[in-house]
Amino acid sequence: GAIPNFIDAFFEMCSGYSTTGSTIIPDVESLPRSILFFRSLTHWIGGMGIIVFGTALLPSLGINGQLVANAETPGPTADKISARYSDHSKKLYLLYFAFTIAEIVLLFFAGMSPFDSMIHTFGTVGTGGFSSYNNSVAHFASPAIHWIIIIFMILCGTNFNLFFDIPKKGLKALTHDEEFRLYIKILGICTILITISLMLNGVIKNPFTSLTAAAFQTSSIMTTTGYATKDYDQWPAFAKCVLLIVFLSGACSSSTGGGPKIVRITVALKLIRRQVAKKLHPKRVYPLNYNGRPIPQEVATNISNFILFYIFVFFMGCLLVSLEGKDIVTTFSAVITCLGNIGPGFAKVGPTCNFSCMSYFSKFVLSILMIAGRLELFTVFVLFSPKYWNSNRG
Amino acid sequence: GAIPNFIDAFFEMCSGYSTTGSTIIPDVESLPRSILFFRSLTHWIGGMGIIVFGTALLPSLGINGQLVANAETPGPTADKISARYSDHSKKLYLLYFAFTIAEIVLLFFAGMSPFDSMIHTFGTVGTGGFSSYNNSVAHFASPAIHWIIIIFMILCGTNFNLFFDIPKKGLKALTHDEEFRLYIKILGICTILITISLMLNGVIKNPFTSLTAAAFQTSSIMTTTGYATKDYDQWPAFAKCVLLIVFLSGACSSSTGGGPKIVRITVALKLIRRQVAKKLHPKRVYPLNYNGRPIPQEVATNISNFILFYIFVFFMGCLLVSLEGKDIVTTFSAVITCLGNIGPGFAKVGPTCNFSCMSYFSKFVLSILMIAGRLELFTVFVLFSPKYWNSNRG
Repeated sequence: GAIPNFIDAFFEMCSGYSTTGSTIIPDVESLPRSILFFRSLTHWIGGMGIIVFGTALLPSLGINGQLVANAETPGPTADKISARYSDHSKKLYLLYFAFTIAEIVLLFFAGMSPFDSMIHTFGTVGTGGFSSYNNSVAHFASPAIHWIIIIFMILCGTNFNLFFDIPKKGLKALTHDEEFRLYIKILGICTILITISLMLNGVIKNPFTSLTAAAFQTSSIMTTTGYATKDYDQWPAFAKCVLLIVFLSGACSSSTGGGPKIVRITVALKLIRRQVAKKLHPKRVYPLNYNGRPIPQEVATNISNFILFYIFVFFMGCLLVSLEGKDIVTTFSAVITCLGNIGPGFAKVGPTCNFSCMSYFSKFVLSILMIAGRLELFTVFVLFSPKYWNSNRG
Repeated sequence: GAIPNFIDAFFEMCSGYSTTGSTIIPDVESLPRSILFFRSLTHWIGGMGIIVFGTALLPSLGINGQLVANAETPGPTADKISARYSDHSKKLYLLYFAFTIAEIVLLFFAGMSPFDSMIHTFGTVGTGGFSSYNNSVAHFASPAIHWIIIIFMILCGTNFNLFFDIPKKGLKALTHDEEFRLYIKILGICTILITISLMLNGVIKNPFTSLTAAAFQTSSIMTTTGYATKDYDQWPAFAKCVLLIVFLSGACSSSTGGGPKIVRITVALKLIRRQVAKKLHPKRVYPLNYNGRPIPQEVATNISNFILFYIFVFFMGCLLVSLEGKDIVTTFSAVITCLGNIGPGFAKVGPTCNFSCMSYFSKFVLSILMIAGRLELFTVFVLFSPKYWNSNRG
């Protein structure tokens, strides 16, 4: 069970800090508690750590913090948090602390040991997904534990900035936000579709158990947490297909979640709708709005280019990982899940498996993809470019 | 072997006219020659028929021909062929005839019967892929036949307008066109990668046989023809992954091929490159050029929106087809291959299989996807919109 070499250690560390939660350790239960605690703590640090990275570390390396902050908060310039940056980040930390304490307490009262509550809270609020058990959250039978984790996954996949508006605007702060609305809509629709699919196919007959499993898996994957209560790899094709779409959406911007982010999906859907409308009435003007404000052309272009780049990186990753000769589903889902910081995939990297079956080369590629996905691609690839370092010297 | 009902007939007809070449007939060899001939003729008509549709049929239905022509010639406004439309379409037909005659003669001299030469020429020049044999072009062992078909697939996947510039500009007419350059680059690189993969994995040991198989399959899929000489579903993961990328590129604009088209891939890659460059030097201006002329912002936006819409339609198609419970690879590749007008996919719809295993519901969905893909999405979805028909009445 010990970590045998550098690439394995690198993979596990990238997975922790990027809050991906993929593991190469087949038997985590054999690890000492101190290692398990440290491993899960990386999630907790990684979950909000991206802001530390942006505010503290990068400027000291001569890299503009705003560059990273922009990459991590791709909202259509709606909330420029950079002006009151350090003040705001303190508030974010307090909220993050509050969520952490609340979940530890709730999980403890729902029957978890103090140690397990901490491990699974770190994995939830950081949307990370490391567990202290080989079969992840499936170790716990209690629906109460499942629903507590579901709620905290959804909370931590939400744009944290919205919560600060609740004292002023009430729940409208959430319901009036277009990103949050689509986030809840996708979560709700996919949960219902999967529940129905599981029941009609006789996988889980009890409606409540089916709903719990569907809600858990949908929110776990959409918020890019990656916990599992069921082996969804054995689910009906339709349920798997719904999950696959959730795999590609990601959580909200300015949350601890990863993936392409719902704000981009929202804008992409608006762009598609406008394009169809334009074909109907080519001379009419179709303004693009987001949360009541017009989306600048620049931002719309950046978002569609990001999606194109994401697809490009995805296929390059698949090509590299396919070199080791695993089947298509394993290869593609390993790349999706690492690039999107989710955790488990399908087939040989499914929820009951782990990444120990991959070659060292693939593990290295997947580690890079985890970091790239976490830092929203452009930031990372720019760091690799010699031009960037030269342009900063002058 | 006879066609049992309406949906099957509809599928086969859509597949023919959209030059997809997917079939639901397990044993084509048992069909009468007249049916085989008619079936393959639909490819030949469908290959260039989209222009007849645009110039003759649609205006009589009150639909603007330009709408369809725009959808079929998505080149960045470089070649506005609409002005001298009917004159130009005559020239296109003559070229199409010339290719047809040339290939029939060459295949005949390479050893095919006159009937088989015609069937396989219709399938090649229309980039369709129907064969008179159950195992497609694999029926013929002669490498000469394979290479003749490879060359005509590549020719017919090229922008036909480029050929008219050859008398004036020589081969520069082709080599100076950015779309053609990327087309040949992708074809070449993928062929080489697959050849190496096949040889290193011991699938085909002879270098020439390996090259022939790789070149045939790459050009067959990239030009969206869909003929097969080998069961590529059994190839190494890396070779399959390379093919999958080719599955998503399509042929050149204004060719008989389908798919998202190389011109869009060219522009998408330029958009990605510019986005990365912008991160390096945010204040510099990066003009986007295509064939030496600037790409209007409008066109760049249309192209990235098309790709977003293509992805959206792809996932909706997958959701619908997944209802019948086939595995992920079968479901997803069936949708890709039908939407891209290619023909075979992977797993249960692989090159040695056919679509007869699909449910009637899936066959219907796939038929609609074939038409939608052929007419480049927007045109078709606009036709389904009641707004369109109302706006045309006034």
